[in-house]
Amino acid sequence: MTVTITAFERSPDGGRGLARDTRVRWALEEVGQDYDIRPLTFPAMKEPAHIARSPFGQIPTYEDDDLVLFESGAIILHLADKHGHLLPRDEDARSRAIMWMFAAVNSVEPPILDLQCARFAEGDQPWAEQRLPLVMDRIRQRLAQLSARLGDDEWLDGEFSAGDLMMVSVLLRLKMSGILNEFPNLAAYVARGEARPAYQRAFASQVPKDGG
Amino acid sequence: MTVTITAFERSPDGGRGLARDTRVRWALEEVGQDYDIRPLTFPAMKEPAHIARSPFGQIPTYEDDDLVLFESGAIILHLADKHGHLLPRDEDARSRAIMWMFAAVNSVEPPILDLQCARFAEGDQPWAEQRLPLVMDRIRQRLAQLSARLGDDEWLDGEFSAGDLMMVSVLLRLKMSGILNEFPNLAAYVARGEARPAYQRAFASQVPKDGG
Repeated sequence: MTVTITAFERSPDGGRGLARDTRVRWALEEVGQDYDIRPLTFPAMKEPAHIARSPFGQIPTYEDDDLVLFESGAIILHLADKHGHLLPRDEDARSRAIMWMFAAVNSVEPPILDLQCARFAEGDQPWAEQRLPLVMDRIRQRLAQLSARLGDDEWLDGEFSAGDLMMVSVLLRLKMSGILNEFPNLAAYVARGEARPAYQRAFASQVPKDGG
Repeated sequence: MTVTITAFERSPDGGRGLARDTRVRWALEEVGQDYDIRPLTFPAMKEPAHIARSPFGQIPTYEDDDLVLFESGAIILHLADKHGHLLPRDEDARSRAIMWMFAAVNSVEPPILDLQCARFAEGDQPWAEQRLPLVMDRIRQRLAQLSARLGDDEWLDGEFSAGDLMMVSVLLRLKMSGILNEFPNLAAYVARGEARPAYQRAFASQVPKDGG
C-alpha cells in the first residue's frame, strides 16, 4: 500500500517549510517510507471529504490502507513505532523521547502560534502593536527554559529522536523572527536538525516547483 | 517502587480539579497504580530541584525509580503502555487513540488556554474586554468541529481510551464558562467522563482537605 499525506497546494509561507506537513515529510524521510502527496486548496480543506480525515480541517493527514490519522505528533509517533526508528528501544528512554514530543506541541508551540495569531489574525486590531511584546516575552520565557535544559548537548536526550524532530520543527517557526539568535545553543540545535539529510529532502519536497 | 507525582500545594482553582495533575491522577486511578503526591508551592516550582524534573517549572511530574517525566500527555501514554490499559490492543485503533491525545493538547487546549490568558494574565490590559470575543470565537470553532465529529457516539473512537481521558480533561477547563452547554453532545461527553469512578476518585484526591 502507498502512504498518502495531505499538504497545502500552495503553502501560505511560500515554501519556507513552516506548515506542519514538513515535520511529517521529515519523519517519513527519516524512516525511509515512500509517500504520495494529495495537495489541497484552502476551500478543499473545509469540504466533507477532508473533514472526514481531519475534523479540524487541517493538514497534514496520513492515510495507509484503512488507517487515517490527523495530528502531526500522532502521525510521527505512528511512523516511529511502525518502522522501529526515531524512538529508543529502552522503555524509559522511549517515554522520555515521547515526553519531548508532547513538550514541543503542548509547552513550546502554543506561545509561538500565539505570535502568528498576534501578527496575522489580530494584526489589524487596535491592540496589536501594544500586545506584541507580551507575546514575545512568553516565547522568550519558554526558550530560556529550553536553552537551560539543552545546555551544550547535541540533542535533548541522547541520540536524535522523534522528540528532537518535533522540537526543531516547532522552533523553526521562529527562524524569521530572529528571536532564536538570542539563544545560541537553540539556534545551533535547530541548525543541526536542518542539516540532517532527511530534513533536507523533506524541505526540498515542499518547495513549490514553480517557485510561487 | 512507589510512583510519585507533583501537584500544586494549593491549586489556584481552589479544588475544581482544573490543574493538569488531575488528568494524571485520573489515569493512575484508571490503571490501578498507587501513587504518592509531592505538593509544591509556587516558589518551589521554580527551584532547581523541580526544574531538574520539569524544565518549564510546571506540574505534574511523574517519578518511578529512575524514570522522571513531565508533560501530562507523555505521563498518561507511559502509564497506558506500562499497564496495558487505556489504549486499544489493535495497532490502528491504538494510533487513533493517541491521535486524540495529541488533538486534545495541540488543537483543542491552546485556544482554551488563551481564554485563561486573556482573563487573567492580560485581564487588566486595556484591550482585554474587546479581545475576549475573538478568543471565545476561536474556542467555539474548535468545539463545533469536535461536536460534529463526536455526533451521538459515546466516546471519540470506540471504547473509552486515553484519548477521551485527555479530551474530557481539556474540555473540563471550560465548565465554568458555560460555553460547553452550547454543544449538548460535548457537555454530555464530559459528564460521562466525570461519572467514571476513576475520575471521581481523582477529583476527590485533589480537593484541599481544609476546603481552602
